[in-house]
Amino acid sequence: MPERAGRAAADPVADPVVAEGRADPVGDSVVAETPVGPMAVPTGQAVVDGLVRLLDLEAVEVDIFRGRSPRVVAVQHGKAIFSLSASFQAVEAGLDHQGRMPAAPDPETLPTLAQRYAPFADQLGMIARIPRPIDIRYVDEPPFARRASGNRGEPHVKVWMRTDGALPDDPLLHVCALTYASDFTLLDSVLVTHGKAWTTDIRGASLDHAMWFHRPFRADEWLLYESDSPSASGGRGLATGRIWSRDGRHVVSVVQEGLLRVLTRRPEPPPHD
Amino acid sequence: MPERAGRAAADPVADPVVAEGRADPVGDSVVAETPVGPMAVPTGQAVVDGLVRLLDLEAVEVDIFRGRSPRVVAVQHGKAIFSLSASFQAVEAGLDHQGRMPAAPDPETLPTLAQRYAPFADQLGMIARIPRPIDIRYVDEPPFARRASGNRGEPHVKVWMRTDGALPDDPLLHVCALTYASDFTLLDSVLVTHGKAWTTDIRGASLDHAMWFHRPFRADEWLLYESDSPSASGGRGLATGRIWSRDGRHVVSVVQEGLLRVLTRRPEPPPHD
Repeated sequence: MPERAGRAAADPVADPVVAEGRADPVGDSVVAETPVGPMAVPTGQAVVDGLVRLLDLEAVEVDIFRGRSPRVVAVQHGKAIFSLSASFQAVEAGLDHQGRMPAAPDPETLPTLAQRYAPFADQLGMIARIPRPIDIRYVDEPPFARRASGNRGEPHVKVWMRTDGALPDDPLLHVCALTYASDFTLLDSVLVTHGKAWTTDIRGASLDHAMWFHRPFRADEWLLYESDSPSASGGRGLATGRIWSRDGRHVVSVVQEGLLRVLTRRPEPPPHD
Repeated sequence: MPERAGRAAADPVADPVVAEGRADPVGDSVVAETPVGPMAVPTGQAVVDGLVRLLDLEAVEVDIFRGRSPRVVAVQHGKAIFSLSASFQAVEAGLDHQGRMPAAPDPETLPTLAQRYAPFADQLGMIARIPRPIDIRYVDEPPFARRASGNRGEPHVKVWMRTDGALPDDPLLHVCALTYASDFTLLDSVLVTHGKAWTTDIRGASLDHAMWFHRPFRADEWLLYESDSPSASGGRGLATGRIWSRDGRHVVSVVQEGLLRVLTRRPEPPPHD
């Protein structure tokens, strides 16, 4: 159980992918990057003390999978708070198909996130003002705007996104940037059909986050991210996502389940416990 | 790192769910059961020496998730071949939505698997004759029949399924039976659009298998399992599934990626190595 060098990490999902991808590059593309479990890292405390590689799974038939499959745990204040399963595959050929990219207006014609937030600055506070590393352009109204307009619609959300600035050419860096970016808008598809919004109505947390990397892409070029929520129940909501390159290639699939507790005004506590 | 009692296991996916569900029933429903990684257990050798619980993840905010999240590894011949992440949640209420169940003919009107196999007994050998614990009724032709008929169609498959016989009432047993049953037909959705079939054209293995349990169900009553393949590339194919109770409730979502190598006739080896 070799312990990796301790380091401060800005993102508990993307960072282990960088570390593992650089540790032993037998393959040259990430296959399925599937962090699972309660990854409840409070904002402002996302400092991970270190990453521990628990094991590498062994394929029973040695040629079944030309790659490797590490299992990594992130530790914060001495506690395991997050586990990641990643697989890396050497490039090979095979059956090939994908669906058709949905229609969407060009990202350049859509409002920036700052423009979307501006009318709601009073409610959103700091969230409306902080600079963001990912340029996100909602095709339709975001949840907080739909909540105000009463436009509930289907549990479906589309955004264009790219990093706000060019990245070096290292493909692993683009995988990690997109892993980070893929968390922001996915669960919106659960909320919009209920007219609910983060902060005002919902206390949420990502319970798991799974990604499958199908084809090469750059995270600093526009990607269309469509998400759908097939089901919500029991305080949890499921969202599935497909990410498309601008030229219509299906590059990544994503699934996330979120804990979504509806905030209610608590009754005053009784005078005597 | 407490090691669980060694035992012979018939199914490396369902068995850890039973073990974990019975170990510490703080919750009463399985939330997300997400075994990941190369689970290449050759047929006839699916004997697992033991299950090792690596850790229980800790939620940073103690009330964020009222349940637990064990990480378990299955060991075969001293090697870790399979890892499982499961989460158990206490029942709670919240936002609720689902899609609409697709139309399908009644299962009683559809051929049994034995009837579907019969015309292909020569090609399929033992596969056509062995008794099966899951009664599977394909709504359309299975992959081997579509291969013969040339009817490729969309990457979409629907089957009715239930255990061949009644089960006791323990809900955990129904979760495990459906976990076992959910592996058989899911990746068919990748193959049908290419006119390929298992055994004759494809060497395959499940790379990961994820399930989200939304609503209660019985595995010994008919369930409609629809699967779609959004993408195949690089020797891998992704399939997503939705499982519906006969009265139209969306009970489970499934995602699996498979390794799918197209079989080719190998050239004769050269006379000298």
